[in-house]
Amino acid sequence: MSLKELGELGIIRILESILGSSARTAIGFGDDVSAVKLGSGKVAVLKTDMLVGSTDVPLGMTFRQAARKAVVANVSDLAAKGVRPLAGLVALGLPANMAKRDLHGLAFGLRDGEREYGFPLVGGDTNESQDLTISIALFAIAEHKRLVLRDGAKIGDIVAVTGAFGSTSAGLKSLLDKKKRPRQLPTPLYKAVFMPRAQLKLGVKLADSGALTASIDSSDGLAWSFHELCQASRVGMRIDEVPIDRAAKNFALLYNYDATELALYGGEEYHLVVTVKPNKFDLARRIADGKMWQIGTVTERSEGITLKRNGNYVKIPRKGWEHFRRYA
Amino acid sequence: MSLKELGELGIIRILESILGSSARTAIGFGDDVSAVKLGSGKVAVLKTDMLVGSTDVPLGMTFRQAARKAVVANVSDLAAKGVRPLAGLVALGLPANMAKRDLHGLAFGLRDGEREYGFPLVGGDTNESQDLTISIALFAIAEHKRLVLRDGAKIGDIVAVTGAFGSTSAGLKSLLDKKKRPRQLPTPLYKAVFMPRAQLKLGVKLADSGALTASIDSSDGLAWSFHELCQASRVGMRIDEVPIDRAAKNFALLYNYDATELALYGGEEYHLVVTVKPNKFDLARRIADGKMWQIGTVTERSEGITLKRNGNYVKIPRKGWEHFRRYA
Repeated sequence: MSLKELGELGIIRILESILGSSARTAIGFGDDVSAVKLGSGKVAVLKTDMLVGSTDVPLGMTFRQAARKAVVANVSDLAAKGVRPLAGLVALGLPANMAKRDLHGLAFGLRDGEREYGFPLVGGDTNESQDLTISIALFAIAEHKRLVLRDGAKIGDIVAVTGAFGSTSAGLKSLLDKKKRPRQLPTPLYKAVFMPRAQLKLGVKLADSGALTASIDSSDGLAWSFHELCQASRVGMRIDEVPIDRAAKNFALLYNYDATELALYGGEEYHLVVTVKPNKFDLARRIADGKMWQIGTVTERSEGITLKRNGNYVKIPRKGWEHFRRYA
Repeated sequence: MSLKELGELGIIRILESILGSSARTAIGFGDDVSAVKLGSGKVAVLKTDMLVGSTDVPLGMTFRQAARKAVVANVSDLAAKGVRPLAGLVALGLPANMAKRDLHGLAFGLRDGEREYGFPLVGGDTNESQDLTISIALFAIAEHKRLVLRDGAKIGDIVAVTGAFGSTSAGLKSLLDKKKRPRQLPTPLYKAVFMPRAQLKLGVKLADSGALTASIDSSDGLAWSFHELCQASRVGMRIDEVPIDRAAKNFALLYNYDATELALYGGEEYHLVVTVKPNKFDLARRIADGKMWQIGTVTERSEGITLKRNGNYVKIPRKGWEHFRRYA
């Protein structure tokens, strides 16, 4: 059996079963970040995410944008836990025929990331590789109890998101399908695909407020995030409405897509999906300067994960972006 | 200009110039590890090293051995600084056509590494990639002043190594050259190439003893290590003799290689190259259970880096294993 047939979840299951976990670990495999107990209630927060040229870099993305995005993807997971990175490392796999000016671009993209999110890349490793590879590892120190994990959602909590969805998905579909590719991508779709942003400031402020009970970033798709949060917290979710980006709506109308599907089953979209204590939702929304939409409620696990469509709550399947297997 | 023409040093120079350094950083790019100040004299020690299938995995190496070696390469750099890893992360780039049993092998190899060096891999990331990629990041906490850096060698210090050299080089040459490939690689050469070991226990004990003034691991080749230590410490070195592994000597005799060249310009050999206070050399050797050879003396920078051959001290050129450019 090949890894293609096994799929990313199958791969992760094998790795987890053999590597196991450790008493040292505060959070092991399975949350947005890992954490190691340091004593006195502190944990070291560790995160790694690898960007691979052949699978993660869409047509037309510059080396500078790709390197910046590699940083963003890592920072986003820390943002979801409410933690600022203290420092990072970068391991590079670079094709031998890559041009010097592209290396400059790549380095500037890494620097863009450092500056936007206020931490230094303090070391790294360079290698020759057939496939462009940018592997970032981030490090932080935090109070253990301050980390907003995936497993804290309680029945009755408000489900909220920090942005509108679908623009990354629409932008990528537009790039992949020649017939549906406009001469120039509309600016919001271009920005979503090529210059995504991690919600670091917002994630830290929300964690500080104590309003959140659980949090995850939406990088594997919104539907996927619902499922991950619910599985970790052993709850269900009733979603009333998914906020859809206006440019994504236009794209869907123009090219006959279901805008809700674009919003649910995309990926590489770095918003936060959070559950909020009902009596603290106003506080959270104030902290977010309005960048927070109530989209549903946490329910009993047995109710499953449903979305209101045409007046009825229908199940949201566990689909999303998974490497090795490509969902429609 | 392509990266092939630029060479690894040129690449690193560009990355360093654009990424720069930071006040936060105790050690930036340029030592075996990076370190970030945490206050109270403590530092977080960070290290990443990436193994790439097409360039770092010799013919005949199993997935298990490759994954284990990826851990060893990272641990060796911490060993040289005298620091035990607290936890690690692993980011994987895996070819879609890789077999499930090979993924099992890879996971077991990572576990071998965890167990041999006593730390857990607490998280990671999996990706599809054309080129097998195993990117490890290690994390530790240490007293800043306890780290044995590259820049502390003083004139008059003893230069010492913790092993005999040349077996990895001989093994690799044997594998690469069909004419010189015996039906079965002699065990010491096989072990050197496929099951190298990092000197973690020894490195920590030596750092504890306070006998060392500088330290580096020999993974980029012995000659390269001399040059790195001397450059960082602004000194020279007079090397009287290089200990050569017996199996490497036999290989050299049999196939007409210069054994000293094999020992000096190899790589992927994970011994420690250290400078020792003269009045503490006996202590260091006792701590090392005899696994420590005095090979020379630290001199003024102006004397350069020389090796005694046929009664004369001749310059040791700065050659070694460098990705992108291949030295003879």
